[in-house]
Amino acid sequence: QIQFDATEHPHRRFNPLTGQWVLVSPHRAKRPWSGQNEVLPETDSPSYDENCFLCAGNTRISGDKNPDYSETYVFNNDFAALMTDSPDAPESDDPLFVSQGARGLSRVICFSPDHSKTLPELGSDKIRAIIDTWNEQIEELGQDYAWVQVFENKGAAMGCSQPHPHGQIWANSFLPNEIAIKDINLKAHFAKHGSNLLLDYALRESERIERTVVETEFWIAVVPYWAAWPFETLLMPKFKAARMSDLSDAQKDDLSVALKKLTSRYDNLFQCSFPYSMGWHYAPFVDEQNQDYWQLHALFYPPLLRSATVKKFMVGYEMLAESQRDLTAEQAAQKLRDVSDVHYLEDR
Amino acid sequence: QIQFDATEHPHRRFNPLTGQWVLVSPHRAKRPWSGQNEVLPETDSPSYDENCFLCAGNTRISGDKNPDYSETYVFNNDFAALMTDSPDAPESDDPLFVSQGARGLSRVICFSPDHSKTLPELGSDKIRAIIDTWNEQIEELGQDYAWVQVFENKGAAMGCSQPHPHGQIWANSFLPNEIAIKDINLKAHFAKHGSNLLLDYALRESERIERTVVETEFWIAVVPYWAAWPFETLLMPKFKAARMSDLSDAQKDDLSVALKKLTSRYDNLFQCSFPYSMGWHYAPFVDEQNQDYWQLHALFYPPLLRSATVKKFMVGYEMLAESQRDLTAEQAAQKLRDVSDVHYLEDR
Ligand SMILES: O=P(O)(O)O[C@H]1O[C@H](CO)[C@@H](O)[C@H](O)[C@H]1O
Ligand SMILES: O=P(O)(O)O[C@H]1O[C@H](CO)[C@@H](O)[C@H](O)[C@H]1O
Repeated sequence: QIQFDATEHPHRRFNPLTGQWVLVSPHRAKRPWSGQNEVLPETDSPSYDENCFLCAGNTRISGDKNPDYSETYVFNNDFAALMTDSPDAPESDDPLFVSQGARGLSRVICFSPDHSKTLPELGSDKIRAIIDTWNEQIEELGQDYAWVQVFENKGAAMGCSQPHPHGQIWANSFLPNEIAIKDINLKAHFAKHGSNLLLDYALRESERIERTVVETEFWIAVVPYWAAWPFETLLMPKFKAARMSDLSDAQKDDLSVALKKLTSRYDNLFQCSFPYSMGWHYAPFVDEQNQDYWQLHALFYPPLLRSATVKKFMVGYEMLAESQRDLTAEQAAQKLRDVSDVHYLEDR
Repeated sequence: QIQFDATEHPHRRFNPLTGQWVLVSPHRAKRPWSGQNEVLPETDSPSYDENCFLCAGNTRISGDKNPDYSETYVFNNDFAALMTDSPDAPESDDPLFVSQGARGLSRVICFSPDHSKTLPELGSDKIRAIIDTWNEQIEELGQDYAWVQVFENKGAAMGCSQPHPHGQIWANSFLPNEIAIKDINLKAHFAKHGSNLLLDYALRESERIERTVVETEFWIAVVPYWAAWPFETLLMPKFKAARMSDLSDAQKDDLSVALKKLTSRYDNLFQCSFPYSMGWHYAPFVDEQNQDYWQLHALFYPPLLRSATVKKFMVGYEMLAESQRDLTAEQAAQKLRDVSDVHYLEDR
């Protein structure tokens, strides 16, 4: 029989964090594309836009006026998906109609007063300010909520309606699906192997190199072995850290360097502002005693596949059966390594 | 304390088929939208397009010529995600790098020779021919494969690059994630309650009415209690049927009526060709003895939320934490019931 070749032969890979498989169809990248093209964002937007709700000094829909901020600025989302005080849904013992109360709040973090700059275009000192804001918000909201999801939707292709650089924070009275499942899988790995899955993984990838996109003193970003999105990455510390609050100053400074390099490589790949959703996972605020198996990490889910305007559609087969990708994780990592880690707009 | 009101207060609902929760934020539909708009498909496309790979008599990229077909036409996908004879991936006992061989094939089903007509615009006799083709394909491929996913991606918003009405069939040597999880959950429900979850659910919804979108003699389509996509529906038989091959002629005829009404209501909602991914789930070909807990059903995942051009983005929070919806299942069902079940183009 023919020898197996991961770059030629369809196969499945297992994601130990979700317990789900991904179908890898590397030969499929050859098919032609005549479907939908994404709209490219405007370039050369101004540093200040008088119609932007996030620019310093402007008034929002709520009537509140943004202060004259210089680094980050956080405010409560005027259209939050959760309320701090909604009543509990009635209990039901009918297994077909189960509901549950849900409380929480949403905040917006402006990353910079400069309307025109995205994360990779900010200096690493400015990125460090974002890290500190994430950390403060998580620690503050973690006092009252079981989970605090910090994330960024970047680009119109990811449902972002606001070019001003910003992220979001949704605090939850419950553990959302993805965290609850990850908690179970990390805990089971620790029970079975006596070690932290994500720390093991970071150290192994640091040796193997083939899936590494960025490596700094303390951090490593890889296209994970089980990536579903074409250029998905996983950013991990190379040391034990259950939460952002466990990081030293040097580790946070180094994280800002890793974030700048990773997002610059993304933008450089197709010379565009690379859309993605990214966010942080870490030990939830449910069991302060038992965090050995948890590890802080960031997940980047970018939709683009072939060019600045052609994305991967996770539709039909993917929604009904299983995620499917058109190039291997190793091929994606190679493409991201082949471009500079200095942003193309800074470079010229 | 205030009384709980599902149309006002955020809450979570549990999907017993996937074991996942959905966050329902009904008050959120009020927020303004200034994000990406979808491109509307061309209307008044011709019945025959000489540049279309799926029209009768035309030659495909492979060089093969389509016959002069009059109802459905099935051919092997020239860019399949799977191969019938790919070698097995090497086994690994490393829990962080697990892969598995995957074999299969992909076919395309042209639903009609008429380039300009989508499913709801076909006569129910033509839809019956599609049902028969689905059934034949499933039975044929089920001899060799554990799973046969039948699906349709409709519209550019769902990654469809071909306006000619068509669906796909992907046969798999393995049980994909969604099927494997559903198998576990249906089996557990049967073991615990001694009854078929989906048949129970169909009969209960038929009594409750509030989530019903279409009901015919043998079939019911509802926005399920746990729907994630705004206008997601679940189409179920009101009798026991593990697979499409269990249906009588009358039940198949009636299914074509139900499909025509459901997809017509979709198109009527925003007076556009409503994009969606849909597909069938049913007892997989792994255990012919043990199908009591399985039930045939179709799932429709349409992305639109507010209008023909504004869709729901399942991004940041949804990808990292939990699916979230902006109106209740009951509100969505009401909107679909409020429009006619006769297609707006046929109606005038
Ligand atoms: O095969 P198609 O229609 O070209 O491709 C479409 O459907 C496939 C199956 O859901 C997806 O994997 C692709 O991302 C999507 O563009
Ligand atoms: O809050 P935004 O940015 O307006 O909205 C965006 O992100 C949210 C959280 O991921 C999603 O629920 C919305 O569908 C998306 O459009």
